[in-house]
Amino acid sequence: LRRGVPEVIFCQGKTLHRIIEIVRHMLVKNSVVMGTRADKNIFEEVKKIAPDAKYYDDARIFLIEREKLPQNKGVIAVVSAGTSDIPVAEEAAVTAEVFGNEVERLYDVGVAGIHRLFMNMDVLHKARVVIVVAGMEGALASVVAGLVDKPVIAVPTSVGYGASFHGLSALLTMLNSCAGGITVVNIDNGFGAGFAAHQINKLGG
Amino acid sequence: LRRGVPEVIFCQGKTLHRIIEIVRHMLVKNSVVMGTRADKNIFEEVKKIAPDAKYYDDARIFLIEREKLPQNKGVIAVVSAGTSDIPVAEEAAVTAEVFGNEVERLYDVGVAGIHRLFMNMDVLHKARVVIVVAGMEGALASVVAGLVDKPVIAVPTSVGYGASFHGLSALLTMLNSCAGGITVVNIDNGFGAGFAAHQINKLGG
Amino acid sequence: LRRGVPEVIFCQGKTLHRIIEIVRHMLVKNSVVMGTRADKNIFEEVKKIAPDAKYYDDARIFLIEREKLPQNKGVIAVVSAGTSDIPVAEEAAVTAEVFGNEVERLYDVGVAGIHRLFMNMDVLHKARVVIVVAGMEGALASVVAGLVDKPVIAVPTSVGYGASFHGLSALLTMLNSCAGGITVVNIDNGFGAGFAAHQINKLGG
Amino acid sequence: LRRGVPEVIFCQGKTLHRIIEIVRHMLVKNSVVMGTRADKNIFEEVKKIAPDAKYYDDARIFLIEREKLPQNKGVIAVVSAGTSDIPVAEEAAVTAEVFGNEVERLYDVGVAGIHRLFMNMDVLHKARVVIVVAGMEGALASVVAGLVDKPVIAVPTSVGYGASFHGLSALLTMLNSCAGGITVVNIDNGFGAGFAAHQINKLGG
Amino acid sequence: LRRGVPEVIFCQGKTLHRIIEIVRHMLVKNSVVMGTRADKNIFEEVKKIAPDAKYYDDARIFLIEREKLPQNKGVIAVVSAGTSDIPVAEEAAVTAEVFGNEVERLYDVGVAGIHRLFMNMDVLHKARVVIVVAGMEGALASVVAGLVDKPVIAVPTSVGYGASFHGLSALLTMLNSCAGGITVVNIDNGFGAGFAAHQINKLGG
Amino acid sequence: LRRGVPEVIFCQGKTLHRIIEIVRHMLVKNSVVMGTRADKNIFEEVKKIAPDAKYYDDARIFLIEREKLPQNKGVIAVVSAGTSDIPVAEEAAVTAEVFGNEVERLYDVGVAGIHRLFMNMDVLHKARVVIVVAGMEGALASVVAGLVDKPVIAVPTSVGYGASFHGLSALLTMLNSCAGGITVVNIDNGFGAGFAAHQINKLGG
Amino acid sequence: LRRGVPEVIFCQGKTLHRIIEIVRHMLVKNSVVMGTRADKNIFEEVKKIAPDAKYYDDARIFLIEREKLPQNKGVIAVVSAGTSDIPVAEEAAVTAEVFGNEVERLYDVGVAGIHRLFMNMDVLHKARVVIVVAGMEGALASVVAGLVDKPVIAVPTSVGYGASFHGLSALLTMLNSCAGGITVVNIDNGFGAGFAAHQINKLGG
Amino acid sequence: LRRGVPEVIFCQGKTLHRIIEIVRHMLVKNSVVMGTRADKNIFEEVKKIAPDAKYYDDARIFLIEREKLPQNKGVIAVVSAGTSDIPVAEEAAVTAEVFGNEVERLYDVGVAGIHRLFMNMDVLHKARVVIVVAGMEGALASVVAGLVDKPVIAVPTSVGYGASFHGLSALLTMLNSCAGGITVVNIDNGFGAGFAAHQINKLGG
Ligand SMILES: Nc1ncnc2c1ncn2[C@@H]1O[C@H](COP(=O)(O)O)[C@@H](O)[C@H]1O
Ligand SMILES: Nc1ncnc2c1ncn2[C@@H]1O[C@H](COP(=O)(O)O)[C@@H](O)[C@H]1O
Ligand SMILES: Nc1ncnc2c1ncn2[C@@H]1O[C@H](COP(=O)(O)O)[C@@H](O)[C@H]1O
Ligand SMILES: Nc1ncnc2c1ncn2[C@@H]1O[C@H](COP(=O)(O)O)[C@@H](O)[C@H]1O
Ligand SMILES: [Mg+2]
Ligand SMILES: [Mg+2]
Ligand SMILES: [Mg+2]
Ligand SMILES: [Mg+2]
Ligand SMILES: [Mg+2]
Ligand SMILES: [Mg+2]
Ligand SMILES: [Mg+2]
Ligand SMILES: [Mg+2]
Repeated sequence: LRRGVPEVIFCQGKTLHRIIEIVRHMLVKNSVVMGTRADKNIFEEVKKIAPDAKYYDDARIFLIEREKLPQNKGVIAVVSAGTSDIPVAEEAAVTAEVFGNEVERLYDVGVAGIHRLFMNMDVLHKARVVIVVAGMEGALASVVAGLVDKPVIAVPTSVGYGASFHGLSALLTMLNSCAGGITVVNIDNGFGAGFAAHQINKLGG
Repeated sequence: LRRGVPEVIFCQGKTLHRIIEIVRHMLVKNSVVMGTRADKNIFEEVKKIAPDAKYYDDARIFLIEREKLPQNKGVIAVVSAGTSDIPVAEEAAVTAEVFGNEVERLYDVGVAGIHRLFMNMDVLHKARVVIVVAGMEGALASVVAGLVDKPVIAVPTSVGYGASFHGLSALLTMLNSCAGGITVVNIDNGFGAGFAAHQINKLGG
Repeated sequence: LRRGVPEVIFCQGKTLHRIIEIVRHMLVKNSVVMGTRADKNIFEEVKKIAPDAKYYDDARIFLIEREKLPQNKGVIAVVSAGTSDIPVAEEAAVTAEVFGNEVERLYDVGVAGIHRLFMNMDVLHKARVVIVVAGMEGALASVVAGLVDKPVIAVPTSVGYGASFHGLSALLTMLNSCAGGITVVNIDNGFGAGFAAHQINKLGG
Repeated sequence: LRRGVPEVIFCQGKTLHRIIEIVRHMLVKNSVVMGTRADKNIFEEVKKIAPDAKYYDDARIFLIEREKLPQNKGVIAVVSAGTSDIPVAEEAAVTAEVFGNEVERLYDVGVAGIHRLFMNMDVLHKARVVIVVAGMEGALASVVAGLVDKPVIAVPTSVGYGASFHGLSALLTMLNSCAGGITVVNIDNGFGAGFAAHQINKLGG
Repeated sequence: LRRGVPEVIFCQGKTLHRIIEIVRHMLVKNSVVMGTRADKNIFEEVKKIAPDAKYYDDARIFLIEREKLPQNKGVIAVVSAGTSDIPVAEEAAVTAEVFGNEVERLYDVGVAGIHRLFMNMDVLHKARVVIVVAGMEGALASVVAGLVDKPVIAVPTSVGYGASFHGLSALLTMLNSCAGGITVVNIDNGFGAGFAAHQINKLGG
Repeated sequence: LRRGVPEVIFCQGKTLHRIIEIVRHMLVKNSVVMGTRADKNIFEEVKKIAPDAKYYDDARIFLIEREKLPQNKGVIAVVSAGTSDIPVAEEAAVTAEVFGNEVERLYDVGVAGIHRLFMNMDVLHKARVVIVVAGMEGALASVVAGLVDKPVIAVPTSVGYGASFHGLSALLTMLNSCAGGITVVNIDNGFGAGFAAHQINKLGG
Repeated sequence: LRRGVPEVIFCQGKTLHRIIEIVRHMLVKNSVVMGTRADKNIFEEVKKIAPDAKYYDDARIFLIEREKLPQNKGVIAVVSAGTSDIPVAEEAAVTAEVFGNEVERLYDVGVAGIHRLFMNMDVLHKARVVIVVAGMEGALASVVAGLVDKPVIAVPTSVGYGASFHGLSALLTMLNSCAGGITVVNIDNGFGAGFAAHQINKLGG
Repeated sequence: LRRGVPEVIFCQGKTLHRIIEIVRHMLVKNSVVMGTRADKNIFEEVKKIAPDAKYYDDARIFLIEREKLPQNKGVIAVVSAGTSDIPVAEEAAVTAEVFGNEVERLYDVGVAGIHRLFMNMDVLHKARVVIVVAGMEGALASVVAGLVDKPVIAVPTSVGYGASFHGLSALLTMLNSCAGGITVVNIDNGFGAGFAAHQINKLGG
């Protein structure tokens, strides 16, 4: 039925035993199975039943890819503010790649060092869709959306402390952005951003 | 400079005097000027300096359109849960239309009467992008995104009372949707949804 | 005094020593003693003083049942959105069973895969009362209540991350449901839902 | 289609014009049409197109009843804490009556004057379902549920000031009640409570 | 200087080393030194420099009492709702005792089993001041204050789960009590309640 | 029955008609009837049925006093931070006076001008109980409680703007005070503070 | 005593009568009296007792200046994001001017049109202290602080709607800024920012 | 490029491996490298590649200082309320020192023992800028700002429990302070306060 489309397991909060059971079940009918929020232990266990599984450390994703999915043409840019945002940014980037998109990464260009963003405007110009990943004050999404005229998907992260309230601050910032064209996903939801960006990019052929 | 692109004024919280001043200023260089959150009084005043201005009651938008903007090909569907959500839905729909998109409306199909949604699946199938507008529990966005495989932009509205907390309930529902591909804009931000949908639709040629 | 009615201990936050003391005390006058939020350790200790105790893994409930309680006639349906909601759903289901009700389970039918719900409408039709268990956006409760004309008890769960705020999102969704007849219990309160469903079902004879 | 079942309009936030339009539309196929959160102005307008309409002042409900609905047998008790909670209590009571239930009212028995509750225990004993309406600290619901062994539907009201946060305090109290069998509806949602109580009472034949 | 008055250390969040240092320093000039939120480890260490130190398990208090403080005449009642509230209730009770007051305890009389409260009204009648300790919905404070005409100090506890939000629910309930004469302290602040009750009781001679 | 004790009506949110009805009813059996949160209109209406009624402008209290209540001996000090806190402070002060206590007022001594407090320490020294009324940051309660060794009742007010969140800021400050002996009432609850202070003062004979 | 220093009245929430009384009282000993949050009515009344009073419309400030205060040397820059932020920005700017500072204004340079900020960097370079005023997402403060190496005082405004929560969004953004050197004042507190900037600027001689 | 200016790493949430990598990278071009939120383990690892690294226990800061930075002239006072606030106070103090400022510490002078503050007023008088660090109710910042006429930077800490909500209470107190001239940084952000104080002090020459 679902052949040719990745099947995705959200591993967080599931027991190792249940995850393996689901993977086994999915592999019967699906050629691409991917697990998010999967730590190394989970991957080791998955490898026992699927020795061709791969693991993306930073993204915390395991992937069993037994068929190459159709590739979209455009580029998705994934931009992140700080080094601590990388796990979420990578979740978005790897998701987009697995779904068949070319991804360009531009990391650690937060507003405290905004010159780095300006020196890399070509990445933004090349892209059809931009994913912006930022924690703490999350201002980067507004800045990026103010510079480009294309869909911007903002991902608030739980990076920060004190009044960041586990990502609430970045979430509110992004929802209230005065720069048009921004849409927002849940805190730390790199997968959702990657998936939505794929759906948008697919439209462009 | 900006010719051929609508210039937008967010009227809420601005004095009548300032709005007129901005409109006058914009009309010098722009062929399309649009005002959101504009009540009838504002429109009457705008008409004095721009007799060709039009007014969209439900959307609370005035429009001065002295040149037709380039038209995109695809359709944007605007789906709403209840009749009280119509002002926000219309803000999204009219914005998308002014920016050059064909829009199909499907209103009053909230989950309490979900059969109406199922009887109108063709509207969802025809669209390239779907905007879902819902207040109170906001569950409609999840249901729609579970039915289609295309970008869904969710707009929570402040419709409701008590524990809806002026739209917070719908906002959280939409951010937490388990149905992939949903992205979210601010509470009542029909304009933002219409604009983002336009940027996405434009990608499709 | 209380013979023939289950006596219930909420184990979370109580020391092993105190729990055993309470169980011992209750067994003097009660024929059915049940412990909720009880991990395996607690059960092992309970078995030492009550070797006929049983343990429900998923529900995290131990049960000492020395007399069969009177049985109600109708069926209570327990419906859950995702696999991570199963512990709470089972707490509700086992509670209802222990109190003397027949229970039908329908799990993993969340709005992202809503077709599974539609394919199992008979479970809803058979029931006198429906318990809906869902985390994240909690939209399932609205969908179910929109489909049936009977009491629906909604149980928000703390399943989710980010803006789910430990169940707050699902709780608000359920409280704001536009589908009539829904009432709500505390986040993760499977016991409360099972107990209320029992009281309602009992009315039907 | 829907003949013999009341059709309900939530009037709050709708224009007079739209309400009349909906009423007119509903009267074609329905013999009972009811409007909640309707002020006197709305009623006056409704009477112009339906001279047989009645108005319940305290409940803020208008009713056009052209056929008597089937009557349930049991009694629903509506209990309220203070005089300021009466509008919500009446919304619940009138709703239950319109849907075909006998209602007994017990008002102004809040925990500050708890003796009044104890002097009227017969009302609770007679009922099959109890609706408890309370604002401020909302403690009455717990007290009632501790006294009876039947379904209790708790309605928090927005009555109060300061840290009552427009009903949040009463809502949380009711959700956290340690007295089993309580389920809760949205703040000020008398209609929802009356409707759910009707569905429960109907089960008893 | 401060001789004859207990000196108090709030141990939570302080290192063992710093606590011992403070105790040593205090013992130079004070005859009564007391530590709250002190686990057994801390007590063991304190005993090394003050072998006459005593430990109150439930209250998590250590006490070095080298002189008997002046005794007040009246009785302070400490009433608690559930067994899980006992640590906070004991913190209040032991504090009041150490400061020189006679205390009567009445535990596990929460509103779910309100008859136990009514059967022990003499404890309330005997007291000059009543401390009420309750978590979850915190309704007990209102009930008690409705029954007596004397100062009632309410202590919300963090006991509960879900929408109890770590004591917020009980706190709001108590602040919004319609029963006159209640004043409230911080969540879990048994010490503060015991101290305030002492200051009030002292007034009575 | 209740002769010799003031009967109190909380007027806010009640209709003029209902208030008059309650007053008339109360006057049958009570010699002292008092209304809080009563604007001038209410007073004018009350005077029509009770020409001996008095009105306290700042306190927004009307009083019908047909018998002098027994007088307590001690003094209650009412201290307030700013001039905008005076209505709440006066509600506390007048309540305490009506209940039979001597009150000393010390207003406008907030921490921004803390020297004024120090120059009036005699007011604090004379009192048996101190009520501290403060909005915005509410720091005054901590400062006062740090200076005196007697019961301090803190009343947060809704005075402020922005992050004062309608009194939440002052409420949290007061609940978290490190100065022992503070207890707190609801935001703007001058009546509650005056009543509790009376109950405490009464203990002193 | 206080001669040569402006005396300031916060007019919001005070009666006209009380304000005039305070002004009259202050004019006895002070040569500069200033009122913030003062509408035109208040000014008209003030002019009756002080005909030399001036009014700043946008800043909502009235000023009676009978002596020129000592002037600081440096420049304070006041930067604002949108036109709706101007009242707060002007409150800050006028306050700083009245206290004796030269002010440069740079308005409407929010991140949606960030090029306007870059074209006016000289204003930032000239200043000793920068005040940044922004509502909605408040990202401007981070951008400015990332560009300059001097004290930046951020003022969140209540401008916005929906999830801006009356300024909370901008406040959190500013508190969580990763750009060093930012300090924050209360929502809409232009006066506080102007005063703090003056104290800082004074340090530079 | 950045020679002569400290480069700062925020270690919290970074892996040991990444921190070492950043340090190594920074040491190529910078003579002063400092790490905040660094536990002892991190320091031990840093010492392996930079044996001249120093560690400040209380401040949780490591420092590699291969060149003395230019020294400012004035004094920065760091004042703290309780002993539990010392880690944050030390983060502020050490930061200010590393950036080239003389610091005077005045610890444990919270409002509960306000006389200790008054006995050490000289520390406040000597300083050009004052940093006030306080948790729980955070009232100390207001008191200090009411006593001095110079910039006060307030640092709320997460010290406290219950309704302190991890520093929210102190944060709100400080933002709402009625004492002019206070600006605020994020909860526990000692680094930000030290850095801002340095920027202000530098202005004084
Ligand atoms: N209804 C709306 N909701 C949110 N943003 C809007 C809305 N209407 C216009 N905008 C945005 O606000 C900008 C104009 O803001 P302003 O300069 O305050 O008039 C436009 O360029 C849009 O990006
Ligand atoms: N899982 C649960 N969630 C909520 N309430 C429960 C749960 N289990 C038991 N209870 C209630 O808590 C009471 C027992 O509380 P306790 O005396 O603390 O053991 C029972 O009578 C039930 O009403
Ligand atoms: N200003 C007030 N704030 C809080 N509670 C009040 C106030 N005034 C009166 N009350 C309480 O409310 C009760 C009367 O409430 P009600 O029956 O609604 O008029 C009185 O007995 C008092 O306990
Ligand atoms: N303790 C701290 N709290 C807040 N911000 C800090 C802290 N320490 C360093 N920073 C800031 O964080 C920046 C480094 O962040 P990062 O690149 O994540 O290491 C520094 O330049 C500082 O501006
Ligand atoms: Mg853009
Ligand atoms: Mg989809
Ligand atoms: Mg239904
Ligand atoms: Mg019950
Ligand atoms: Mg009482
Ligand atoms: Mg004291
Ligand atoms: Mg900077
Ligand atoms: Mg000062």
